[in-house]
Amino acid sequence: MNTAQYTAIALPGIPDVRKGDDLARIVMDALDQMGQVLQHGDIIVLAQKIVSKAEGRVVLLDEVTVTPEARDLAHRVKKDPRLVTLALAESARVVRALPGLLILEHRLGFVMANAGIDQSNVSSPDGQACALLLPVDPDESARRVADALYARTGCRIAVLVNDSFGRPWRQGTVGVCLGAAGFPAVQDLRGECDMNGRVLHSTVVGLGDEIAAAASLLMGQAAQRQPAVLIRGYAWDVPECNARALVRPLAEDRFR
Amino acid sequence: MNTAQYTAIALPGIPDVRKGDDLARIVMDALDQMGQVLQHGDIIVLAQKIVSKAEGRVVLLDEVTVTPEARDLAHRVKKDPRLVTLALAESARVVRALPGLLILEHRLGFVMANAGIDQSNVSSPDGQACALLLPVDPDESARRVADALYARTGCRIAVLVNDSFGRPWRQGTVGVCLGAAGFPAVQDLRGECDMNGRVLHSTVVGLGDEIAAAASLLMGQAAQRQPAVLIRGYAWDVPECNARALVRPLAEDRFR
Repeated sequence: MNTAQYTAIALPGIPDVRKGDDLARIVMDALDQMGQVLQHGDIIVLAQKIVSKAEGRVVLLDEVTVTPEARDLAHRVKKDPRLVTLALAESARVVRALPGLLILEHRLGFVMANAGIDQSNVSSPDGQACALLLPVDPDESARRVADALYARTGCRIAVLVNDSFGRPWRQGTVGVCLGAAGFPAVQDLRGECDMNGRVLHSTVVGLGDEIAAAASLLMGQAAQRQPAVLIRGYAWDVPECNARALVRPLAEDRFR
Repeated sequence: MNTAQYTAIALPGIPDVRKGDDLARIVMDALDQMGQVLQHGDIIVLAQKIVSKAEGRVVLLDEVTVTPEARDLAHRVKKDPRLVTLALAESARVVRALPGLLILEHRLGFVMANAGIDQSNVSSPDGQACALLLPVDPDESARRVADALYARTGCRIAVLVNDSFGRPWRQGTVGVCLGAAGFPAVQDLRGECDMNGRVLHSTVVGLGDEIAAAASLLMGQAAQRQPAVLIRGYAWDVPECNARALVRPLAEDRFR
């Protein structure tokens, strides 16, 4: 099935999210503001930052106890040892460590700078230096918001959590799907035929990452005052799977 | 500047493109069919396949003279030596060569399986086995279509050429921008501040790849009967640059 068209809409007036905030409510309030209601098949994409903030993943740097390992690594990469301590605690392994650069494999399998820990757009109420960690389980984060939206609207809504990653070989960050509920984060076309009847070999499509990128275009990188996006009209007829399916197991990664 | 919303529309009725076909005309005919006309700021995304076909980049495999180097490599990767001959001729270096997998750095800097050479959805009029090469210069391909659309409509249209790439660390292919005209394929936010006044370090956004992914969602992978997509309503106020800016110079690639 091919969708003919879809619309991506930045939800207006998303407030500065704090720990414990109800993201489903925030989404519905934003839709109200637009005079819209949720519909079956809508996709809501939430920036990782607001999901992490709602889940209380803000850490005060002054409360971090620096580990010896982090101190050594921080010296090598010329970064704040407290940030490196947090990054290592979130990670399974160090992928690259160079002055100014620390690429880690996050415990969830994401390969990203500083294990996705972010200092931009983060500060405590009293202005102390903070860092923001990824949600503990972004698929579960998406599931909770999708369930809350279903409970309130009776509509099955797909929810994605996105972030921006740098990539090998390519300049510039792009939106990537960290978590998904009610959506086929990966579409497997293996065995399908092309227009000439040729069987397509190993064509697996990263639909979740493509939706994440489509939403990222509206979120903005700097101010990111548009951290929630509605994708309306995009249809699918393939089995749903969460964003963990987008992580290529190390053993299968033949690019490396 | 943040765009509030955009719409992605698959252009209907795109014919099977042949060498010499006028893609600007095909785009305008499709818009006519929709009762639409081009507007300033529209973005047209064209699948690499139709651009390559229009530019006559179809090669009959029976006409390929296999090189000794290609014969050896083909044996290692268990692929058609004629395809491998074409792939090597298009490439600067071999990135990975394993049974069933041949990842090359294309002469344009794209790191991709088989140097982007495709056998799916390609056959000669008389059904001979064919392969399809990337356009010689996808930025120039985009420029030619953009200029032709401007000449006929007086509207400045951004044109992108996209393809689907696999990636390290992530499952599934995603749309990637091979060529761009009249669009900021890369947006440089370095020096901008976030909401708390923190200067953002090395935030460069791959806008071209995000648009390519947003369009790819509508193109479909198998039949790909929707190889041209209109993105309408996405605004930008940053300098335009072509897709070559999305290629990370080897020397700067610190992921590797």
